[in-house]
This record gives sequence, structure tokens and C-alpha cells, in this order.
Amino acid sequence: MISVEEARARVLAKVRRTGMEVVGLAEGFGRVLAADVVSRVTQPPADVSAMDGYALRAADGMAGASLKVIGAAPAGHPFAGEVGPGEAIRLFTGSFVPAGADAVLLQEDATAADGFVTLNEAAIAGRHIRRAGQDFTAGEVLIAAGRRLTARDVGLAAAGNAPWLSVFRRPRIAILATGDEISLPGEAIGPGGIVSSNSHALAAFVTASGGEAVVLPIAADTLEAVAAGADAARGADMLVTTGGASVGEHDLVQAGLATRGMVLDFWKIAMRPGKPLIFGQVGGMPLLGLPGNPVSSFVCALLFLKPAIEVMSGLPGEAPRTERMPLGAGMKANDQREDYVRAAISHDGVVTPFPVQDSGMLRTLAKADALIRRPAHQVAKAAGEMVEVIRLSDL
Amino acid sequence: MISVEEARARVLAKVRRTGMEVVGLAEGFGRVLAADVVSRVTQPPADVSAMDGYALRAADGMAGASLKVIGAAPAGHPFAGEVGPGEAIRLFTGSFVPAGADAVLLQEDATAADGFVTLNEAAIAGRHIRRAGQDFTAGEVLIAAGRRLTARDVGLAAAGNAPWLSVFRRPRIAILATGDEISLPGEAIGPGGIVSSNSHALAAFVTASGGEAVVLPIAADTLEAVAAGADAARGADMLVTTGGASVGEHDLVQAGLATRGMVLDFWKIAMRPGKPLIFGQVGGMPLLGLPGNPVSSFVCALLFLKPAIEVMSGLPGEAPRTERMPLGAGMKANDQREDYVRAAISHDGVVTPFPVQDSGMLRTLAKADALIRRPAHQVAKAAGEMVEVIRLSDL
Repeated sequence: MISVEEARARVLAKVRRTGMEVVGLAEGFGRVLAADVVSRVTQPPADVSAMDGYALRAADGMAGASLKVIGAAPAGHPFAGEVGPGEAIRLFTGSFVPAGADAVLLQEDATAADGFVTLNEAAIAGRHIRRAGQDFTAGEVLIAAGRRLTARDVGLAAAGNAPWLSVFRRPRIAILATGDEISLPGEAIGPGGIVSSNSHALAAFVTASGGEAVVLPIAADTLEAVAAGADAARGADMLVTTGGASVGEHDLVQAGLATRGMVLDFWKIAMRPGKPLIFGQVGGMPLLGLPGNPVSSFVCALLFLKPAIEVMSGLPGEAPRTERMPLGAGMKANDQREDYVRAAISHDGVVTPFPVQDSGMLRTLAKADALIRRPAHQVAKAAGEMVEVIRLSDL
Repeated sequence: MISVEEARARVLAKVRRTGMEVVGLAEGFGRVLAADVVSRVTQPPADVSAMDGYALRAADGMAGASLKVIGAAPAGHPFAGEVGPGEAIRLFTGSFVPAGADAVLLQEDATAADGFVTLNEAAIAGRHIRRAGQDFTAGEVLIAAGRRLTARDVGLAAAGNAPWLSVFRRPRIAILATGDEISLPGEAIGPGGIVSSNSHALAAFVTASGGEAVVLPIAADTLEAVAAGADAARGADMLVTTGGASVGEHDLVQAGLATRGMVLDFWKIAMRPGKPLIFGQVGGMPLLGLPGNPVSSFVCALLFLKPAIEVMSGLPGEAPRTERMPLGAGMKANDQREDYVRAAISHDGVVTPFPVQDSGMLRTLAKADALIRRPAHQVAKAAGEMVEVIRLSDL
């Protein structure tokens, strides 16, 4: 048996980034930048007013002074002339500060009448003025390559005048569920049959992780069907199978893929749930064989598929992020296998493992807020002691 | 000035859920269920083996016993006959336990030879058997209406044999940026002009929040242009404007929309950044007028638009979730306005406010991991003291 850490490192060593593509800014949200976003503009482009008010010379800015209002400069309509001594210009948030002016009087500190404005408070040089380039200047890197774009990043790229973005292509993940016993939802269910949950759970998982899922038809338990699935996956960035990763005679994924010249590794991983994992490659396409059990399949996807998709997407690809939380109930000592325990997080941040952890129970997986990660040989923990927790959120 | 809490309550009181639509299971991820998912099947459909091994009668399960293997029952191929005394059936994970059998011998505890299997360990009644319906039974509610579907929920709905899902239609949010000074990225920038960041930042924000964004052309600062924008928004579930929500003479959103018979509220909210907010309604369409400043616009979107989209999507619609974290640097006492302070979260969970908080600085917004929420009149805080934090994640 190998450790989770080692298995993940071996998977990540074999997957590669996808190529670049150009997308419109409006399609950029959630994509991973393949090239820096460099600003084409300076922001603000000139000294601008941070408030509604009046531009004037600071030398005229004594409280009680009265200045002649010689024009207005709404945002987008800069004042063409210059503000001279004894003069003021009406302006608004975002208005360019006109030549000659170096102070802004707030509108609420001003009394305007008959073409003049009287200062009820002193106006101080530079106050309420945003300097040209205060946010960024043309030529600066606004967002570095390798970042997954947030909504705010999209706004920042827009402000930097970037209508197009170079991003990594979303990795295409082909999903091949195998097994004579499974049908897709709504199809006829054979005797001894069940409905396949893995294909579409994994497809959603791939979407949530930033990939593009290609769901292949279910493969029956024959060498030919599994091989045909591998053929159908051609052009994908990775093939993910479920089922057939155990050691029973009827587990045909390894044998079926071997007929297509795949080099396969089979690992037993020191973890629970989800011990057996297939990993290999044919041509340029990596293959990840997950267990057929839906809970094991999900946990393995979280530990191995998600970071693999991240690496293919141009991100670092790390172990799931953990947080430390106090336990709501005690847990027995752990054995030699790293354990991922379905659990609920209370409103006040206490994590409580579900009492029954049978890996056949998909419902408790769906109900879980988090997995408690228990390292191998972890000692027993009492309620209130801290444990490491992986939030499942939208996964 | 009204409080953030009161403004949010007033917005949420006026928005309504969208209608239902039916989507395929494969499109269900991230959608909000409008009707319960009720299982059409029982899972497991019968008692099944949890392991690879042999089915037998517990009465025959003494260590050392030797049983005749009368057949095999791979998953999907149940054994049609009955297991009699002295007999065993080869089975695999997920295989139905055949009639007559009530115990499973693990394969690793068995020695098979010449059509017989010898028990190296005792087999105990019921062990390694998953009972019919252990996960769920036909007719049970698997996922309740009102839940946003995770990848795991999609798997659970599949397992319950649900090829279709009733979900709330994604709310369509029309976005109208206003201002003579703004252009879209890549377009010509006029004198005194800047590039509009709000339209596409908000569109991404709407997508991230579960809505569908409709970006309208930028409206110039005329009554007619703003009114034309409102016309173009017809059929949307909400119109969001940016800019023109201040008190300057050139803020025309209120006046422009009034020409279309909108009933408008204008609120000054006791918050920083982003004081002024317009809210109103015409016909069935609510209107939310955000400030033009991109930082203020984002913070107001987080506080008011996101919960509004959630309510329209069929979710409760709550204030952004906060966590408590220790400060990495001291903060001065707060004034009468609730404050949202851009901040970084370190690897070890310490939150440090950025030293410069000018609301013109979009770049510090994009860099922020979180906003520190400071209630009105909060006393000064020293480094190490706890504050409330809103993580920004993909927003």
C-alpha cells in the first residue's frame, strides 16, 4: 500500500497543462490566465476628484472665501481651460481636476449662489483628489498568469482595457462508468441492476473543478466494451473510469485498457474509503481508474482528480485545503489507513462525524458538510479536540 | 441614513422567486431544486455483498469448513437458485446475496480449490452485507426543494433514478452601466474617459451567484439613454444600474427611470464604501441602483444583489456569511458607518487590512481575500483581537 501523498505526487507528475486559448473578457470568469493581463491604460488617467464639489486653487481655499464659478466639468467632459485665482469649477466624482486647480471643496461645505461659491470650510491642497495612476499605470501587470479569475479580476482586467484574455483551455475529462449492473437514470434497470450515480456526479465534479466533462456510454463488463470506451475518449485530456478497480475476477478495466496498449499502474492506497486506484497512460492521455463505489469514487476524485484537473488547468494542484475545527463527538484511534470521515459542521464551527460511515451510503455523503481527515495511526480524540477538516461546499 | 440590515430587508421583501423549469440531471449542478427529489428506487435494491467473497449459510460458517461452490453471482447477474446447506456462491462487491445465504466470507479469508472453498476464518451472519434500503427506499425524499445542488447531490439524484429535475429558473439580471465617461474594453476612450469595469465585473458576479447576466449597452448621461436602458431590460427579473446613484446634478438614473413610471426609493446607507443606493420597482421588475465606483459597486452587490439573486433563485437570501479571525494589525475605532475593509488572509488564518482603502482602488479589491466587517461605532482593535471577516473567494 502507498500513501495518499505519494499517490497524488505520482499522478500530478504525469499530467500536463492544456494549451492556451483566447476568450472574450465576458467569458473570463473562472478561467485560469495563461498570460499576464498587462494594463493598456493608467487609472485614473489624470488627477480626478474623489467627491462632488468644486475645483479651485488651494491658495484661494480659506473658509469664507467666495469664488467665481467659471464652468463645470462633469465626468467624461473635462474642462478645457484653466482655473485662475478667484475662480472655481463645478465638478463631480471622477471628474478630471482642471489645470490650475489643486484643491477640491466638498459640495456639502459649499454655498453656491449667483455664479459664485462660498467656502464654509477651508479647502486643502490635494485632499479629495485621486492622483493619476493611483490604482495602476499603463504597462503594469494587473493580474499574473496562473490565477483563476474572480469576478473582481474580470472587473480589473476590464479597467485595464483588456477585451481578450489568454487562458488555459478547460481540461476535457472523459468519464467511463463500467459495470453490467448499472444503468443511466430513467433507463431500464436489469435484474440485479442499480442506477449509475458516478457518471453524472463526476461530471458535475469536473465542472466544479474547472474542467469540461465528456460522459461516455456505460461500458459493460467485457474487454471489448472497456476498450471501446477508451477509443471514444480519444482527444480528451484524461480518461476517468469508475468500477473495475478492485481485484475481483469481474474487474475488467485493467485488462480492457491493456488491449489498447495502456501502461497501467495499480495501487492499493492506505486510505479509507477507496483503497484501489488505477493510474496509467496511453499516448499522451493519462488514465485514472476510480473505485465503483460512489463514496469511494468521490473521495478519490477529491484527493486525486481535482488536483490533476487543477494542474491541467494551469494551477498548482494541491491537496485539498484543510481547516482545524473542534470535534463535536469523540473518535476512536485510527489504524494504518488515512481516513476520510463524513461529518456535519454546526453553525458555530464544530465538526461532528456521522455515526455510520458505510461507504455504500451515498446519502450521508450528500448530507456531509465536510470530511474529517485522520492521518494514519492518529490517536483517539475526545469531543472538543481539534481535527483537520476539508469543506465539501459545492462538490 | 438607514442601516445595511434594514436596506437588505427592504430589498429582499420586494424580490420574488422565479418560476420553475425542468432540466436534465446533467444540467442540474448548481441549480436550486424547486421540487423534492423523491427516490423511484430502493438502494441497495436487495441485500448485497459489501466485499468480494462467498455467500453461504451462517450455520455453515465455522472456520475450517469446506463448502461446495455451486455458482457465481457477479454484480448485475444475480444467482437464480438458492444456497443450500454445505454450499457457497462466489460473489463480488455489489452482488445480490442469493436466497438461502445469510453470511459473506471475505475472499482473503477463503481458499478455493477444485470447486470447493475452505473457510480460514469464521463467517458471521449479516457481516459484510448491506441491507436492502440501507441507503434509501423508494418514495423517500432524497433532496428537499430549496437546496442548491452539489456534485454529490447530482449523484444522489441519479442513484434515486431521477433523469429530470424541477429547478428554479436562473434569475436574469440586466446590467446597465451609465456615464458619459465610460467605454467598454477595447472601444475608443473619449477625452476624460475611462474603461467601464462594472458591467463585466457584475456580470461575472451574477454568474457566480447563480444568476444569468444580460449586459446592456452603456447608457450616456441623458434621460433618454437611461430610459432606453430600462426598456431594453424588459423581461429581466431585475435591473441593476451602476453610476448615477449619487446626489450630483449629473446623476440621471433616478430621473431617467422616472420617465418610465418607476417608483424609486433613494437611500443613504450607513456604510463605507458605497453609501448611496437606489431601489425601486416598475411593473414586476425590481431595480437596484449601485454606485458607479467599482469598489462601492462590488461591496453593495455583495450585500444586496447576492442575497436578492439567492431569493429569486429559491434560496433564503442571507447576509454574507462571516467568520471570526484574529487581526494581523491594529484598526482604529470606527465611526457611525458600518465599514467593509479590504484585507488579506494569511496561510495561518490571520486577517490584515490593507493600509490604503481608497474606494477608487480596484486593484486592492481584486487582491483582497476578504472584507473585514466593522459594525458602526466599533472600538479600536489591537493586533490579535478577533474581527468578523467575509471571504470573497470566487467573487
